[in-house]
Amino acid sequence: MARQLGKAAKTSETAGAAGSAARLSFLQQQFEAERLDAFVVSHLPNVFYLSGFTGSSGILLVTPQDAALFTDSRYTVQAADEVHEARVHIVRGSLLNAVGERLARLRARGNVRRSSHKNVRRVGFEAARLTVLQKHALDKAAGAKVRWLPWDGKIEAARAVKDADELRIMREAADIACSSWQEILPLVKPGIRENELAAELEFRMRRKGASGPAFDTIVASGPRGALPHAHASPRAIGKNELVVFDLGAILRGYSSDLTRTVFVGRAPAEIRRWYAAVLQAQQAARDALRPGVSAHQVDAAARQALRRAALDKKFVHSTGHGLGLEVHEMPRLGRGEKSILRAGMVVTLEPGVYVEGTGGIRIEDDALVTQTGAEYLTCANRELIELE
Amino acid sequence: MARQLGKAAKTSETAGAAGSAARLSFLQQQFEAERLDAFVVSHLPNVFYLSGFTGSSGILLVTPQDAALFTDSRYTVQAADEVHEARVHIVRGSLLNAVGERLARLRARGNVRRSSHKNVRRVGFEAARLTVLQKHALDKAAGAKVRWLPWDGKIEAARAVKDADELRIMREAADIACSSWQEILPLVKPGIRENELAAELEFRMRRKGASGPAFDTIVASGPRGALPHAHASPRAIGKNELVVFDLGAILRGYSSDLTRTVFVGRAPAEIRRWYAAVLQAQQAARDALRPGVSAHQVDAAARQALRRAALDKKFVHSTGHGLGLEVHEMPRLGRGEKSILRAGMVVTLEPGVYVEGTGGIRIEDDALVTQTGAEYLTCANRELIELE
Repeated sequence: MARQLGKAAKTSETAGAAGSAARLSFLQQQFEAERLDAFVVSHLPNVFYLSGFTGSSGILLVTPQDAALFTDSRYTVQAADEVHEARVHIVRGSLLNAVGERLARLRARGNVRRSSHKNVRRVGFEAARLTVLQKHALDKAAGAKVRWLPWDGKIEAARAVKDADELRIMREAADIACSSWQEILPLVKPGIRENELAAELEFRMRRKGASGPAFDTIVASGPRGALPHAHASPRAIGKNELVVFDLGAILRGYSSDLTRTVFVGRAPAEIRRWYAAVLQAQQAARDALRPGVSAHQVDAAARQALRRAALDKKFVHSTGHGLGLEVHEMPRLGRGEKSILRAGMVVTLEPGVYVEGTGGIRIEDDALVTQTGAEYLTCANRELIELE
Repeated sequence: MARQLGKAAKTSETAGAAGSAARLSFLQQQFEAERLDAFVVSHLPNVFYLSGFTGSSGILLVTPQDAALFTDSRYTVQAADEVHEARVHIVRGSLLNAVGERLARLRARGNVRRSSHKNVRRVGFEAARLTVLQKHALDKAAGAKVRWLPWDGKIEAARAVKDADELRIMREAADIACSSWQEILPLVKPGIRENELAAELEFRMRRKGASGPAFDTIVASGPRGALPHAHASPRAIGKNELVVFDLGAILRGYSSDLTRTVFVGRAPAEIRRWYAAVLQAQQAARDALRPGVSAHQVDAAARQALRRAALDKKFVHSTGHGLGLEVHEMPRLGRGEKSILRAGMVVTLEPGVYVEGTGGIRIEDDALVTQTGAEYLTCANRELIELE
């Protein structure tokens, strides 16, 4: 293909386009407190969120009055279709260069008062997204008089709270993952390979409308389950083994994320005890989840439940993460995370236990924070399934 | 899933591990010319190339004497399995912080001459990969006395030339794409949806051993083909339409990339003329491809062939790109690209013609630069296929 594509914000029909005007205006309202004259948005999911543009090459320049999307000639038709609240500039060569030059021109115009743009001096940029080299190019093209201000997290914070359109898509994306997983269960038998099951899962998600898997599907059987990130391998599943499935669908730009663990055979008492502890940890996290609590409280609830079962040392990652246009977005539910949960946020709850040499157990659901608590978007059965 | 995964370098059995020692030593040999005391490698495909590590979180710190991989507790087992030529540090918290602190300690030790490490002062980093925020964290942890030097492209240049093990995998990845495409051809009929065909393609690639698609599969029918990056949509294919297929497989970390265009029905004379011109442009690029020529000469050869057919204005992207651990890597075959082609490089050749309202034609193959010319790794038929 002709250039690399981003993982998120990549389908041509999405929820975002409709809300562009409101989202831009919400962002612009925050300019004043920081005395920002412009903001360079380079992270593609953020560009999509604000403009509706789904191409793989685009930078949005937002000023207090308006917005302009810079892209290249591969996207002339697509940008005209998708972008309504920003002028579109088709650029030959470096987009960052074009954005920097535009800033320099705006400043010059502001100086001679020929335009509504005031003197453009303080410009925000995404320090967590722009590389050192990209920033250097922007710097050079804009000239020495721009004062650059790292201005991260503002769009991400807005994205964390989903609107009704986004939630409708996310429920559908969750359903696609759940029903695909339920459909392949009869295939899980000793002898079938992990990557055959991954192929079946991804095929079913695609057929149900997903534009692709949200990440490399994990099917990790037996001892491989002790690696929290073991991608599906050619390993054949054996009898009396745990198998961890971690899958997600991208639907109109939005991801789902589901993990289930089954036992092939009749599970011994110790495995049943571990499974029950993980399920209790997830339930504890869900019980803790409501508007006003902090992210680390939800993480601590899961961790505490595992500590009661003396399994907290086997839980080697955080309890969950925000989900939406990216598979991992704000808020992170981990140790020391102070962000406060709000109604409309969607997070995963995914405690796990990993035992070297034996395997892993992880149970993951996508949960919407409601006015009073939380609601699962993923609805597949959570009890231990023994396949005999 | 528990954290986002990179798109490349993500399978557990790859060609890279064996060559780690030689690759590290080749890199270290270049330190002297720049008087580098250390090099921080943060780009995951580069980390994999040098160390064999396939995890989604890892930084490699290379000194003239040795190398150390910093990762987190999710990868304890995996790193021990995969990494043989670097010490592994399992870090709690920020990897960049740990790397920076390690640099500070090495410097202190160098100062008191208790170690073989000389005074660590000049440290290279990947300016094209590290974000402004990441660089800031590294800076802070390492202390003020480090002199940071952007040192981009060295590993990428080495990666551009493939060794025999890598080529064996890439041939297999190319075969998977080609045979999957040939298998779904009988399904291409009026009424079938683009995304059904994408699902069939990805399923077949998976079943043949791919760990996943190398990028979002493109199936673009009728007028949608005029968008060079139209992902497969729910649109049903109509009679008398062009359909562009752009697909690739990831096999043990390495990508293939194949585009074919078919006509559903009997193609009118104008379409045949366009198709012939694109095929000639690809042939011209292939004829130009050999060790010693520059990337822009190959691009110019394709562009010239299209100019003879008065179609060069309809060719809106560059002729090709390097292919390997990333779908787009060095060298880029485009206007003004001065890099010189060398035997062992693998590049795509993918001229195209895009006509708004009608559709697109693109033909793309993966070509290996040999000692005397070029050889295609992708072997599917290139002639116009009319499906009646």
